[in-house]
Amino acid sequence: MYHSVEFEGYESTNVSEDNVPIGSLDYLSTKYESLDYEVIENELYCKEEENKGYRYVVQKDFSRWMTFFWIGVIVACVGIIIYIGIEVGTNFKFNIIKKYFDESTLQNNGMLKPYLVALILNSVPSVIGSYLIVYVEPMAKGSGIPAVKCFLNGIKVPRLIRLKTLIVKVIGVISAILGGLWGGKEGPMIHAGAIIAAGISQGKSTTFNKDLGALNFFREDHEKRDFVSGGAAAGIAAAFGAPVGGLLFSLEEGASFWNQALTWRIFFGSMISMFTLYSVLSAYHGHPGDLTYRGLLNFGKFDDLSYHILDIPIFIFMGILGGLTGALFCHLNLKLVKFRKRYVDTNWKKVLEVLIICSATVTTSFLLILWTNDCKKLGIDPTEYPIQFECKDGEFNVMAALWFQLLEGAVRSLFHDPPVDFSGGVLIPGLCTGAAWGRLVGLGVLNIFPNTNIGIYSLIGAASQLGGITRMTISLTIILVEATGSITFGLPLMICLMTAKWVGDFFSESIYESQIQMSGMPLLAWDPPPLSSNTYAKHFMTHPVITFKMIESVENIVKILKTYTHNGFPVIEYVQNNELGNNYEKCYLRGLILRSQLIVLLQKKIFDRPLTNYWDSVTVDIFREDYPRYSSIEDIELIQNDLKLTINLSKYMNPSPYVVQHTMSMPRVFKLFRAMGLRHIVVINDSNEVAGIVTRKDLARYKVKSHMGKISVNELKLSNKMD
Amino acid sequence: MYHSVEFEGYESTNVSEDNVPIGSLDYLSTKYESLDYEVIENELYCKEEENKGYRYVVQKDFSRWMTFFWIGVIVACVGIIIYIGIEVGTNFKFNIIKKYFDESTLQNNGMLKPYLVALILNSVPSVIGSYLIVYVEPMAKGSGIPAVKCFLNGIKVPRLIRLKTLIVKVIGVISAILGGLWGGKEGPMIHAGAIIAAGISQGKSTTFNKDLGALNFFREDHEKRDFVSGGAAAGIAAAFGAPVGGLLFSLEEGASFWNQALTWRIFFGSMISMFTLYSVLSAYHGHPGDLTYRGLLNFGKFDDLSYHILDIPIFIFMGILGGLTGALFCHLNLKLVKFRKRYVDTNWKKVLEVLIICSATVTTSFLLILWTNDCKKLGIDPTEYPIQFECKDGEFNVMAALWFQLLEGAVRSLFHDPPVDFSGGVLIPGLCTGAAWGRLVGLGVLNIFPNTNIGIYSLIGAASQLGGITRMTISLTIILVEATGSITFGLPLMICLMTAKWVGDFFSESIYESQIQMSGMPLLAWDPPPLSSNTYAKHFMTHPVITFKMIESVENIVKILKTYTHNGFPVIEYVQNNELGNNYEKCYLRGLILRSQLIVLLQKKIFDRPLTNYWDSVTVDIFREDYPRYSSIEDIELIQNDLKLTINLSKYMNPSPYVVQHTMSMPRVFKLFRAMGLRHIVVINDSNEVAGIVTRKDLARYKVKSHMGKISVNELKLSNKMD
Repeated sequence: MYHSVEFEGYESTNVSEDNVPIGSLDYLSTKYESLDYEVIENELYCKEEENKGYRYVVQKDFSRWMTFFWIGVIVACVGIIIYIGIEVGTNFKFNIIKKYFDESTLQNNGMLKPYLVALILNSVPSVIGSYLIVYVEPMAKGSGIPAVKCFLNGIKVPRLIRLKTLIVKVIGVISAILGGLWGGKEGPMIHAGAIIAAGISQGKSTTFNKDLGALNFFREDHEKRDFVSGGAAAGIAAAFGAPVGGLLFSLEEGASFWNQALTWRIFFGSMISMFTLYSVLSAYHGHPGDLTYRGLLNFGKFDDLSYHILDIPIFIFMGILGGLTGALFCHLNLKLVKFRKRYVDTNWKKVLEVLIICSATVTTSFLLILWTNDCKKLGIDPTEYPIQFECKDGEFNVMAALWFQLLEGAVRSLFHDPPVDFSGGVLIPGLCTGAAWGRLVGLGVLNIFPNTNIGIYSLIGAASQLGGITRMTISLTIILVEATGSITFGLPLMICLMTAKWVGDFFSESIYESQIQMSGMPLLAWDPPPLSSNTYAKHFMTHPVITFKMIESVENIVKILKTYTHNGFPVIEYVQNNELGNNYEKCYLRGLILRSQLIVLLQKKIFDRPLTNYWDSVTVDIFREDYPRYSSIEDIELIQNDLKLTINLSKYMNPSPYVVQHTMSMPRVFKLFRAMGLRHIVVINDSNEVAGIVTRKDLARYKVKSHMGKISVNELKLSNKMD
Repeated sequence: MYHSVEFEGYESTNVSEDNVPIGSLDYLSTKYESLDYEVIENELYCKEEENKGYRYVVQKDFSRWMTFFWIGVIVACVGIIIYIGIEVGTNFKFNIIKKYFDESTLQNNGMLKPYLVALILNSVPSVIGSYLIVYVEPMAKGSGIPAVKCFLNGIKVPRLIRLKTLIVKVIGVISAILGGLWGGKEGPMIHAGAIIAAGISQGKSTTFNKDLGALNFFREDHEKRDFVSGGAAAGIAAAFGAPVGGLLFSLEEGASFWNQALTWRIFFGSMISMFTLYSVLSAYHGHPGDLTYRGLLNFGKFDDLSYHILDIPIFIFMGILGGLTGALFCHLNLKLVKFRKRYVDTNWKKVLEVLIICSATVTTSFLLILWTNDCKKLGIDPTEYPIQFECKDGEFNVMAALWFQLLEGAVRSLFHDPPVDFSGGVLIPGLCTGAAWGRLVGLGVLNIFPNTNIGIYSLIGAASQLGGITRMTISLTIILVEATGSITFGLPLMICLMTAKWVGDFFSESIYESQIQMSGMPLLAWDPPPLSSNTYAKHFMTHPVITFKMIESVENIVKILKTYTHNGFPVIEYVQNNELGNNYEKCYLRGLILRSQLIVLLQKKIFDRPLTNYWDSVTVDIFREDYPRYSSIEDIELIQNDLKLTINLSKYMNPSPYVVQHTMSMPRVFKLFRAMGLRHIVVINDSNEVAGIVTRKDLARYKVKSHMGKISVNELKLSNKMD
């Protein structure tokens, strides 16, 4: 019935592994499909190119630029909505609580009433946000950075880039911050940018079930990836005022093959995003036309970022500290995630969890305000949120002000406040924690050298902490350089980030990596596993391979698609052969066809119909209509007569997929796979017969572990493959 | 005797084209070999990896970081030598000329004597510099940027990265600037950085014929390329104080396959380079420990780079102007180059040419000084070079000061001087010209809006002009952002550079591109030619292909190497075959071997010697000893007995080269070639037989022309291929 090609001498590798423990770090999930960043070029594609010519090339190029322009503008708009939403909400909260506080202080009738009011005002947004995320769209949780990384790496993360996810995310971020939970709006901006880019570039929305019919030439995985990296970059540009950092982030994560024109467009989109945000927020704050307002995360202005050569050892020491605490943080976070996976297992428990954390935060803050009656004169160090409480007239309570201040404001205070005042979530909480202990180090240095600028130690501490947690290097350096606006401070930042990364990597993986591994997503590393030159394609390829003949019966196609979950099938041709005296059939490779293409062919009933000119009406666009969500084979209904027909696959298949010889070493296969953004590599034997197939999961299985200075390569378990 | 594989149905493409006109734009030179950026992995490589294990991996990695550190330090040192050399030389010149000027003014005995002195003081360095460049090392001429671009693209440019070239270059730059010729030291710093990186990373010098024996694991084309891109970036970091710009330049030009670790190292090297330069120059100027001194090209401090939304149309207009004048410049430059190729054809004429230009410059300057007696009070606008001449006491001659000021100083004056004063190379001359007309535009705007900051128009003018000439986009934007130290001014810079590029590209190619094309170097573009999906590998591959058998006689190898200039040979195996009833021999592809490998095997007489364990003593290092300059086959002497022996090529060949099917379309072949940095792609037919070979020249031939909005693809002529 079907053609499962198998050769002697290769061990079969179709192993099924079940019962993988929840929260385990050593498996690859079968839930995730791969994306196909290869440009499909088949007869239909050539037909389109011939018909449309140069005008089409120019039009496509122009559309790309315009799309990036709009990505920039709309990402900025979303940033503005989040910013204004938080500001308006905070002011609203502040005014109510201040009223109750003032009342209680005046009437001296205890703090219970203001406490309850604060509890309610914080719990309501927290519950709304968590309810939306838990029940409506769980994909909107967290910063979304690991998932965006995976998407750019080539993994199809379900519901990652839907409009619904964006809406839930925006409301979720605003309510989390209004609810007083530890977190920032910067990470989510990256995810928001990615969604916006994917949405605009496709000219249709699944959430609204609306297809504008425009830009349908961008409905391919590789085009979408380019836009998504641009969107993520625009998100960073808006969040940190760092267009170059955004560009480098998206290159670091996404573009395996550096493309000059794409880079230029990403940078353009990021710039547009940053400047749209600048102009609108400047106008909102009453300075229209002033474009000097910085990004969403405002570090404030560092007047003096000078440092001495003797500071360098201190910076290195702080980098080590950041690496150590970062590794500890990642380790504890992993434990916590595992704990939560086990005990917080139903939806209502998740909402309850948020409620408990929220209440605990409010209670702790209140106790701190009550116990440390720390007053400060109004006007000396102006705060936006002065609450008098038990202070004298003309003074305000420092703790209460700090509590109202958002986390970012806290970071800014740690950077800039004079070195006397007070002692104080991943992106912003990390920055905040690091800034706090950095300030402590600075206070220590201040004891020895009285003329020290304490702000730079906070900054270095914040960078080290964030570096130790995320292990981002070059893009984080540049984001921080841009956020502080000082290129001369780049060297210290780079030194501490590099140290933090090296120290952290010695002990644990980055928080993003461990999150990704926990979820079982088959992320491909940058480099092939070391010392793998002796491992050849024939050792790690998947086989036997399910194949099709050039002219295949509809019945066979349906049966195979129903039996197997694979997504790519080599197309072969049998030739009678007599080699070295042995007479046998050879199955030469002729092409590769994707499940999605077959589904479209079946659904649209594009079968070989002799004596009709059905071929004229078949265009590439037919395959783009349903992108990226194709029907399941189970939903396709065919009548008995259809099943008797055939499909000439050679018209639709990719006639020259990238192939490797079965003797190719793993590093070479890996590099080809990574550089070309492939989904399938067909492995051929000495005489161009299909020997096996290599997919992402075959390569992602080999996981390099580096712990306590020892390098080793693990093989992750994996369940049934389906690429 | 040898095996020239040829199939029916393919037209032979070994065309020889002679009599290509000098200075023509439509040919590819045969002078240039390609580099091989593919990692060679054969049995020897596996043996090495097995023997050395993880320790080796770590050691190599550590060496890489150290090498980048030293690249940064030494590039900065060369920058410092150039800087101090120019400063000391200029002061020397100034003091002598001032003496004669003052004397003449005092005694009122005419300007002949100072004129002659100035003529001699300018001519001597000019002649020394041009003599060195013309007679000692012509490769040191110009900025070297096009040649570095080509190297990173994968072309072996002879003598580009030798120590001798560096020395001549450094002396040449200093003497050119002292000789008053129009040029800057920034372009040459990129070339200098590339040479330094190549030198340090190889642990040996051809110029001094010295081999330290260290770092020999870096003696491969792809390792060298990585270091060279780092060196070029370090050069930019030192020249412009722009480490991020340097990084992006080298990525834009060099790294086809983005590699995170490499990027991080390049950035590290650039940072080290910038900060070494900063600290030494700060100390030289008497402010040790102050790290705020900017790069070699100092734009001065812009206090206020604010602009209004209404400025954007003016910036776009200036971008258009820059694109137009840039295109005109490129066009005239091309004419000039062709003229010079025809008439300035011998070495002495070249030196004479420099002397004439130098004298003309001096004479013009003198006439300007004599005629425009433009005096200015000392102290108001301090100049380093005050010459009183015919001015009153306490005043100095503006023209004379301007003449002494280096071009860069002129750029700075145009950016920063108050808007009343005076009206009056590729990188620096471009900046200077653009800054001048930008200032004119600014003066125009000033008439309408009196509160305009004229400096930003100069800056935009300079950027537009440079953009129109070089068509660099993203890296130039970031270099200028870093050089001005203002990220908020990034958008205007980007807008004008983008406009300038688009307008310029409409009319002509960039100056670098036209220089490269003029020299016939087979530069590969970023993208495959448009609408080439219908062109298949079988149409543009080279064939018949010269091949070897797995076990080949020494005699045959020598004969083939002497007969053909090719650099890569597929290794095949003949198998008797009977397919479809036809009985014939099939020549299956088994691997690929390089000329250089064969040369080493012959030279070291590594032949199959049964009954000896010769194989144990063969290591990869044997092939690295002579890298990158292998002997010619003519120089290898073999005795008659040797010729009778055989070599088992399967041990040394690359057993699994990247292959493509003869039906693969050009865009797919192109992307594979470009992304993997290949030198040869073997084309196979349906049954894995060698059908042809694709080299750089086969792909570089298709040249996209875009003129006046029309896109077309030319095929360049090419002489005998030899890749």
